[in-house]
Amino acid sequence: MTTTALPEPTTAPPDETEIGGRLDRVRARMREEGLDLLVVVDPHSVYYLTNFANYVHERPFVLVVPLEGSPRMVVPLLERQHVEVRSVGAIELVSYYEFPAPAGEKWTDRFHEVVDGATAVGVESNCPLYVIDELDGNHHRSDIVEDVRMIKSDYEIGRMVHAAQVVSDAHASVMAAVKPGDTMATLAGAASSAMRARTLADMPNANLLASSFGAAIQPPMLSDDPHNFTDVFAVMEEGGPHVSVINSVVNGYGAEIERTFFLNTVPDAAHEPFEVMMEARRTAFDLTVPGASMAGVDQAVREVFVRHGCLDRVVHRTGHSFGVTGHEGPFLAISYDHEIEPGMVFSIEPGIYFAGLGGFRHSDTVLVTETGNVSLTTAPDSLDDLLFAR
Amino acid sequence: MTTTALPEPTTAPPDETEIGGRLDRVRARMREEGLDLLVVVDPHSVYYLTNFANYVHERPFVLVVPLEGSPRMVVPLLERQHVEVRSVGAIELVSYYEFPAPAGEKWTDRFHEVVDGATAVGVESNCPLYVIDELDGNHHRSDIVEDVRMIKSDYEIGRMVHAAQVVSDAHASVMAAVKPGDTMATLAGAASSAMRARTLADMPNANLLASSFGAAIQPPMLSDDPHNFTDVFAVMEEGGPHVSVINSVVNGYGAEIERTFFLNTVPDAAHEPFEVMMEARRTAFDLTVPGASMAGVDQAVREVFVRHGCLDRVVHRTGHSFGVTGHEGPFLAISYDHEIEPGMVFSIEPGIYFAGLGGFRHSDTVLVTETGNVSLTTAPDSLDDLLFAR
Repeated sequence: MTTTALPEPTTAPPDETEIGGRLDRVRARMREEGLDLLVVVDPHSVYYLTNFANYVHERPFVLVVPLEGSPRMVVPLLERQHVEVRSVGAIELVSYYEFPAPAGEKWTDRFHEVVDGATAVGVESNCPLYVIDELDGNHHRSDIVEDVRMIKSDYEIGRMVHAAQVVSDAHASVMAAVKPGDTMATLAGAASSAMRARTLADMPNANLLASSFGAAIQPPMLSDDPHNFTDVFAVMEEGGPHVSVINSVVNGYGAEIERTFFLNTVPDAAHEPFEVMMEARRTAFDLTVPGASMAGVDQAVREVFVRHGCLDRVVHRTGHSFGVTGHEGPFLAISYDHEIEPGMVFSIEPGIYFAGLGGFRHSDTVLVTETGNVSLTTAPDSLDDLLFAR
Repeated sequence: MTTTALPEPTTAPPDETEIGGRLDRVRARMREEGLDLLVVVDPHSVYYLTNFANYVHERPFVLVVPLEGSPRMVVPLLERQHVEVRSVGAIELVSYYEFPAPAGEKWTDRFHEVVDGATAVGVESNCPLYVIDELDGNHHRSDIVEDVRMIKSDYEIGRMVHAAQVVSDAHASVMAAVKPGDTMATLAGAASSAMRARTLADMPNANLLASSFGAAIQPPMLSDDPHNFTDVFAVMEEGGPHVSVINSVVNGYGAEIERTFFLNTVPDAAHEPFEVMMEARRTAFDLTVPGASMAGVDQAVREVFVRHGCLDRVVHRTGHSFGVTGHEGPFLAISYDHEIEPGMVFSIEPGIYFAGLGGFRHSDTVLVTETGNVSLTTAPDSLDDLLFAR
């Protein structure tokens, strides 16, 4: 890897070697922490370790990873074939009849067969209480899988390059078409459908349970409130700042691209905030390199905003990570004092928000390389290139 | 309500009286159980009590319900405006800066301000460990909100009638069009898009974060495996059993309809399983009435299958419930010995599955009335009516 070369995209499913490597990394951490079993309930972490994405409902799916031998997964009988079709790598299925079920056939009966006798059982921070309660106090909170997920393998990087191309291409289509009078519903619906179709064309066996195709375009009246997509019939206006948001999980790998753009005119009041955001963005790109502090990136971004007197316009951190989700740790955030490492993938998206004017935020999906970083997503970012005459 | 009259559909959002009634019922249960606070993290239960559906990601959203006064919700600063736009009823927002955040500005700092001093704090079965760990052992597992959700208000019944119409109409369109050679992707895509468009037309302010528009049609080669929708390019065949599945959450209310159907011919081997399934279905409809046992319904269905020598072809219970999700308790399941009450809504979907032949299952969304039940979903169910000449 270099700071500039983009790795090749991959569309193949993971093979046993890839899944085995993930398990090896998890087990190495289990040994360090003195755990003999790891209980994994988070559907994304189960997917990461098995390639199986479950329907999230009341029937429990619990993956139990021992130090040696195949992981075992407690699954409803109903889903046994489905797991066999999708899972990659050796995995022993332990099925229970149904939820709820009579005594002796409950998920807890099977779960106890798998975990009883273990001396130290690791569980995730988001492990639900109903699982914790079955461990009789023998649980050790530890986010091993989440931690292992932070560093992407070469295979995963190839998949994320592909995911980033899917969102970038959808974004380019929106930018080519958007004009005053368009509704969010129309623009977002077209982008979402196009990404779904592209994903199925590139990967006919794509798992839609591990996919989502999010798109939203905020006109200036909404863009000051970065998570407000409540009015799907919101209408694009003359001027701006509009903010485009294309964020997807493309058959199990997340990516996003966002741009602050203008239609026909740029309001006088928008020039300065745009350039301040761009300065913050350049700062974040410059500092998101191996060995740097994640907290330090966000702190430096905040110092840009302080210098321009608009720290009070900040409502979120500089970035989050991607992987089998579109939103996960680690974070470019003050107080999150961890070291940036090659193979991490961050959003870089410093933003500032002004009620009555709008929001100013670009976002890219950025891979940390051995020597720097490279954006996997592509779109123009200058004000000149984001002012469209329509 | 009678056994036959279908209530009128409703498309209006819930008002403060509706939300207040839900809170009153929750608080009555809290008093019975001696709780002075209830901590609600499950996004569906938060939605039920506030009309606000959050993005489910790493930033915690925690609703805390006291015995008196407004509920308080710990939310990220970024989402504050979004909550204000969507929430219904008095609610006090307690926002934290970001996740992660520096000491003093973390979500846990705000959470402790809200819960410290409480003597007995109720938490849900699926409450994540990271919340439990903040309660220092002062937590009492109790699924009060899930329990209250089981009995629908008149308002909710109106919304579910609407949701059932949306899925029934989409299902009718699929049944009118499906022919040998069609792919699952094409049929399901059209149904899903139609439901989304209909929902936005009927409720322009619909919350897509509280919606999903699921559709799948299994040809016989897949229909023996009821949760296997892995091949989206699976092709409809001559004969059957095909199984259609339309299950949606329509702006916050779930409904589903499913049918076993045939194209041009019915294989000889399919007649008997179809009629056995129909006998089980009639049994379940007859018994799903106020005062009956949920376990008893499933037991009687199993006895039908025993009588016909195919209990080993059963991989799931007779039914689940609906509400703000498309899949929740209570359950029509052996060993789930609870009384059926008016205002509950169940799927009735006994099924049997034969490798090499296919699956046999209809499903409807059925409201329990004062005197019996009424199906909110509508479609033909006889073999004659489900054999299409195309």
